[in-house]
Amino acid sequence: MPDLRKDPIVGRWVIISPERARRPGNFQDNFTLNGDGFDPFAAGNEDATPPEILAYREPGTRPNSPGWRVRVVPNRFPALQIEGDLNKKGDGIYDMMNGVGAHEVIIECPHAEPNMSRLSVENVREVLWAYRDRLVDLKKDPRLVHGMIFKNQGAAAGASMWHAHSQLIVTPVVPITVQEEITGALEFYNYRGRCIFEDMLQQELAVRERIVLETPGFVVFCPFASRFPFEMWILPRQHSSHYENIQRQAVDELGMVLRTALRKLEIAVDDPPCNYVFHSAPFSASELPHYRWHIEILPRLTGVAGFEWGSGCFINPVPPEEAAAFLRDSDAGT
Amino acid sequence: MPDLRKDPIVGRWVIISPERARRPGNFQDNFTLNGDGFDPFAAGNEDATPPEILAYREPGTRPNSPGWRVRVVPNRFPALQIEGDLNKKGDGIYDMMNGVGAHEVIIECPHAEPNMSRLSVENVREVLWAYRDRLVDLKKDPRLVHGMIFKNQGAAAGASMWHAHSQLIVTPVVPITVQEEITGALEFYNYRGRCIFEDMLQQELAVRERIVLETPGFVVFCPFASRFPFEMWILPRQHSSHYENIQRQAVDELGMVLRTALRKLEIAVDDPPCNYVFHSAPFSASELPHYRWHIEILPRLTGVAGFEWGSGCFINPVPPEEAAAFLRDSDAGT
Repeated sequence: MPDLRKDPIVGRWVIISPERARRPGNFQDNFTLNGDGFDPFAAGNEDATPPEILAYREPGTRPNSPGWRVRVVPNRFPALQIEGDLNKKGDGIYDMMNGVGAHEVIIECPHAEPNMSRLSVENVREVLWAYRDRLVDLKKDPRLVHGMIFKNQGAAAGASMWHAHSQLIVTPVVPITVQEEITGALEFYNYRGRCIFEDMLQQELAVRERIVLETPGFVVFCPFASRFPFEMWILPRQHSSHYENIQRQAVDELGMVLRTALRKLEIAVDDPPCNYVFHSAPFSASELPHYRWHIEILPRLTGVAGFEWGSGCFINPVPPEEAAAFLRDSDAGT
Repeated sequence: MPDLRKDPIVGRWVIISPERARRPGNFQDNFTLNGDGFDPFAAGNEDATPPEILAYREPGTRPNSPGWRVRVVPNRFPALQIEGDLNKKGDGIYDMMNGVGAHEVIIECPHAEPNMSRLSVENVREVLWAYRDRLVDLKKDPRLVHGMIFKNQGAAAGASMWHAHSQLIVTPVVPITVQEEITGALEFYNYRGRCIFEDMLQQELAVRERIVLETPGFVVFCPFASRFPFEMWILPRQHSSHYENIQRQAVDELGMVLRTALRKLEIAVDDPPCNYVFHSAPFSASELPHYRWHIEILPRLTGVAGFEWGSGCFINPVPPEEAAAFLRDSDAGT
């Protein structure tokens, strides 16, 4: 059973997960990434993964057989385990609990394709709906308090599999980065009486120099204090703190927006390694007036070295205004 | 001139430094890392670097010529610039200032050697004293409030040069990671009336399972909530919040301790890519009863991917108790 342990100084939880050391390559995550070998995520190879938790399928096809369009399975090397009690306990100044949680893989398409940007818009929409479906389901578990959706694309971004996929880790604690955003947003709300995300959106739309793309429901921009070159955030115009409360119509629009943003990045910077993360309020919180869910797209063009680890201060050689201009002008086609 | 920009939600400063994009390899930091090519940091090649700021030299040798043992030069591709006014300003919800600061390189030895652990103990002591000398000097500049010493060793840890070196970035703001440590330590102090670092030290020395090494003045241990496999912290037994106040005798001891810790890591895990960072209180603060300077050694054996970026929660496959046992048993020799 993995442990969750809290750093007593800054309050950051870490997952001590010895089971993961047994995965192929041990410390290095590089198996099957070249795409030449066997693809356990392809249609027809369903028995190479744990049994599916969810799949959107053609009528009449059986679970764990071909006929699916998007498929969700447990991670074969989970960081957390779904069974067990939390067993929260203290040990002197330290706090810990059992590493209870969910770690799932969203296989985004049945065919051999590494990049989400090259899937059909309809396919991306179904991936986004699968995220929502899984969060809604896992939210019922009273032990779990937060779900983080993320994508690792390319070896330098931490991907261990070539085939297009994303992941969901649901934890019994609120991750520190999300907590810090919520705390910061609450301070702003208490001081100014407004949601900081709305203020940011209004300023970006007025200034326009960091806008990449806008639609009736969403705005894509390079944030003022971008950590990474070509970093982009996707922010809904309508206030909502929890991604899992999204409606079908908004997902349809978001599918096009996310795919276009990724496509622009791929064209502008020659298909860089890339992560994206969904930031959304904890399951345990009701709708928060001060916090808005959003997607952060983090291209991994620059290394992260001692200074960044030690300071939390990032050195970004590309001003977000230049990045946004470049991304705006990149024709994402269809 | 680079910019310093503050993320309005979490308060994290980033450095937007377009000048750095002009460095060799543009986004990729990999020149001369193989050690086969020209070594601008070797004795005899002093004109390949900017003129030295500090050097410990043999009597009678001239600046910027051979005869030095440790040499400090400005970074040729500085993240910040030493000239100029801070010019702090707001822009709607955003805050920014000019990217004023120092970015220096500490060349640790005159001969061709990539690893600090293979330098003589006396050599490591002089490097540690050079850190102190530079901090004492830069602290006089009223624009600058914090100095971060760090090392990138190996390409995967962000090193762009093969020759043993470390760096110092001095900023006009307190980096968020240091601020979070100080804030967390102050909360503990206010609640319990004790320094959390002392409590941690006492608990580690009582339990012993995470101790790697101890001397009269220092303790090396794998922290309870280690983010990385084989992460080690070096903590002084005597309370002091500012590294630059260290005395010569303590530096003599720390030289041996740091070298031994790095040597143990090199032996235990086959010379991994590695960062270390010094965490020390801001220049602007007087001695703080709740904060203690320390060194964090961060081996880079595991990739950092979307989950870690999105959550701030790290997945570590090696329990610190196992790492410490392994490091204790690694014979660092002499």
